[in-house]
Amino acid sequence: MTTSQQNLLAWLRDAHAMELQAEQLLRAQARRIEHYAPFKARVEEHLQETLGQQKVVEECIRRLGGEPSAFKDKTAEAMALGHAATGMFADDEVLKDALASYAFENMEIASYTVLIAAARALGDEATARACESILPQEQAMAAWLLGHLPRLTDEYLQRDAAADAVAKR
Amino acid sequence: MTTSQQNLLAWLRDAHAMELQAEQLLRAQARRIEHYAPFKARVEEHLQETLGQQKVVEECIRRLGGEPSAFKDKTAEAMALGHAATGMFADDEVLKDALASYAFENMEIASYTVLIAAARALGDEATARACESILPQEQAMAAWLLGHLPRLTDEYLQRDAAADAVAKR
Repeated sequence: MTTSQQNLLAWLRDAHAMELQAEQLLRAQARRIEHYAPFKARVEEHLQETLGQQKVVEECIRRLGGEPSAFKDKTAEAMALGHAATGMFADDEVLKDALASYAFENMEIASYTVLIAAARALGDEATARACESILPQEQAMAAWLLGHLPRLTDEYLQRDAAADAVAKR
Repeated sequence: MTTSQQNLLAWLRDAHAMELQAEQLLRAQARRIEHYAPFKARVEEHLQETLGQQKVVEECIRRLGGEPSAFKDKTAEAMALGHAATGMFADDEVLKDALASYAFENMEIASYTVLIAAARALGDEATARACESILPQEQAMAAWLLGHLPRLTDEYLQRDAAADAVAKR
């Protein structure tokens, strides 16, 4: 195995761990969101996509002779990202969740962009295509979140101004 | 001051802290990058933009009767974001820096999107326009980073395969 193939395999294992983190983040959000129905529905939809992405990445890893990474390796980092992404809007939970998801989706977009370039550089067309099949799902989720943010902000401000106890979720 | 105005002012102060974090992140990267000249140049360019953005946000805060936030409030969160964003590609420093910057830019994009919506909802056109003047700079930086990632990946793999000691920076 060349140095470049070792890099590709290591990055695929990182991507698999990232998708396991994504699953945890999305499950937690779907549980937490109560009053923002379109946001909750989109999170649940992307959770299903994420489970499929885990399988696609796992197949790439096995085709290259590797084993998928364990979730626990990356839990601390997922927590750190969640914490950091939620530093702004600390008490505004629904906006916090939207920001955290958006930051996470963009991390995934950048990661698959690197993986596609690396796979193409190595002539590994199967891995490149697998990652290209995932990328549009991440882009669509990121675009949805960004497009929905103004409406979510309006709704939050209205609920908060009405001293509505459920504004945050 | 209404609840909504209080929200807007608090979010502007968070945005100011975020731009102070951005300055630290960009300065650290500009120092660290050695052999990837276009990346280094773009980071230095965006550092200058970031200094201007700090002033724009500060003016919005003062216009609403507030004081800008202190840097130290948010340092731990910036560190956490840096750590989390760099969890993937842990040893691959130049890719790590590109990913961290990309995650950070997207956090900024989402944050200004919320601020613009909030300012418009309150009829605060001056704040909305100020934030709208910043947003395209963040979008351009994010787009540049994503567009440059494949080339950065290729260069990194080539240097690493040649056992070049400077591959990482």
